[in-house]
Amino acid sequence: MATLFLVGIGPGGREHLTLNAIDAFARSEVIVGYAFYLELIQEFLAGKTVVSSGMTQELDRCRQAIDFVKQGRNTSLISTGDPGLYGMAGPALELADGIDIKVIPGVSAAFAAAAEVGAPLMHDMCAISLSDLLTPWERILSRLEHAAQADFVIALYNPKSHGRPNHIEQAVEMLLRYKSPQTPVASVKNAGRSGAECRLTTLAAVEYDFIDMKTVVIIGNAHTYVKDGRMITPRGYAL
Amino acid sequence: MATLFLVGIGPGGREHLTLNAIDAFARSEVIVGYAFYLELIQEFLAGKTVVSSGMTQELDRCRQAIDFVKQGRNTSLISTGDPGLYGMAGPALELADGIDIKVIPGVSAAFAAAAEVGAPLMHDMCAISLSDLLTPWERILSRLEHAAQADFVIALYNPKSHGRPNHIEQAVEMLLRYKSPQTPVASVKNAGRSGAECRLTTLAAVEYDFIDMKTVVIIGNAHTYVKDGRMITPRGYAL
Repeated sequence: MATLFLVGIGPGGREHLTLNAIDAFARSEVIVGYAFYLELIQEFLAGKTVVSSGMTQELDRCRQAIDFVKQGRNTSLISTGDPGLYGMAGPALELADGIDIKVIPGVSAAFAAAAEVGAPLMHDMCAISLSDLLTPWERILSRLEHAAQADFVIALYNPKSHGRPNHIEQAVEMLLRYKSPQTPVASVKNAGRSGAECRLTTLAAVEYDFIDMKTVVIIGNAHTYVKDGRMITPRGYAL
Repeated sequence: MATLFLVGIGPGGREHLTLNAIDAFARSEVIVGYAFYLELIQEFLAGKTVVSSGMTQELDRCRQAIDFVKQGRNTSLISTGDPGLYGMAGPALELADGIDIKVIPGVSAAFAAAAEVGAPLMHDMCAISLSDLLTPWERILSRLEHAAQADFVIALYNPKSHGRPNHIEQAVEMLLRYKSPQTPVASVKNAGRSGAECRLTTLAAVEYDFIDMKTVVIIGNAHTYVKDGRMITPRGYAL
């Protein structure tokens, strides 16, 4: 029986691939993914049937991958980051039935972004996507409000999208109702990839122009601080 | 100048190591870690100075690793999972000054646990540690309350600890004030390691006896469901 591998490749650079992901590629006849991500793993594609498609065609990719498996061909369906967090594992499992599936976890963007700037996610944290394509904006705002009240460290995915350039401003406005304007904020672009760029600011001075679709924005908790250019959330040890 | 690598090895099996982690080991003269974790990466320790210590000696390990780097020796300080989430990156960065540090992210336990049971963390999620060694229990309860109200998928780390066996019951009690008793819950032991075990239940029927210190407990959001023995949180696509 063929297997569908739902493979997380991490933030993009080959160095973040796990041995498990590399093994899944080796065992797959077919690799299905978004064209931009396939480029990141090009060296593993030789001799494979490669099926690439555009950014908004997630469900098509899932269906194609499932079809290949039903034809008896081991297939890897690629996600950047972790397939289980805003990735392809959910839709693939929703659509599949009766086939063998293995989820291969990877490093999600928030953790790659955190590693670029220090250790901001060291304590209780939450991930919130600001994309309202699949989630009502009111629910997103409510999650921001509770996250701020609970003093989570907050990692924002999809802080800006085409046609919704000011989601991030609205999110920050909500957070400022509960959090100090001095709260450290890291905006990290292309985390874990060549060309990674970071901006460390405060919540009151977020550089909105710097932020794009592929930026992760990390907002500290009440104890987060910056030392030597690194953002650190204490775990709570008496040092 | 020597470098301190803060290396996440993922959930434990060698297959979850990233190429980056393996490269850090290769470049390190010294490897510092908790004895149990060093066993998981034994094959990379040949010819290295290996410094192991007990479970509660995190700060000692940080200080030792920093001292080796100050002596000019490249050193890897090991965390399981991701060093930036409840790992060694925070305390190491808090204690270090004036040395070169590189954080190598890894797959944190919640994502390894999620991969074992399906795709429960597909949407906005939070991680909460139930250990009150470093965090007041009242704050933990408040985070649980807000997380439930905001309908996050919730990943609980350290659900039980020595001397505090009923934290998980108290947490579930809090969640039941806001969440349906039918909410799917996955308890995953040894995620990503040989001997991984899972229990899929509802929030009203969590198997407390199954859960131990090394279990991750994942509680779904209002849309999470179980299909073919897999726990899935929909991303929101119209399928």
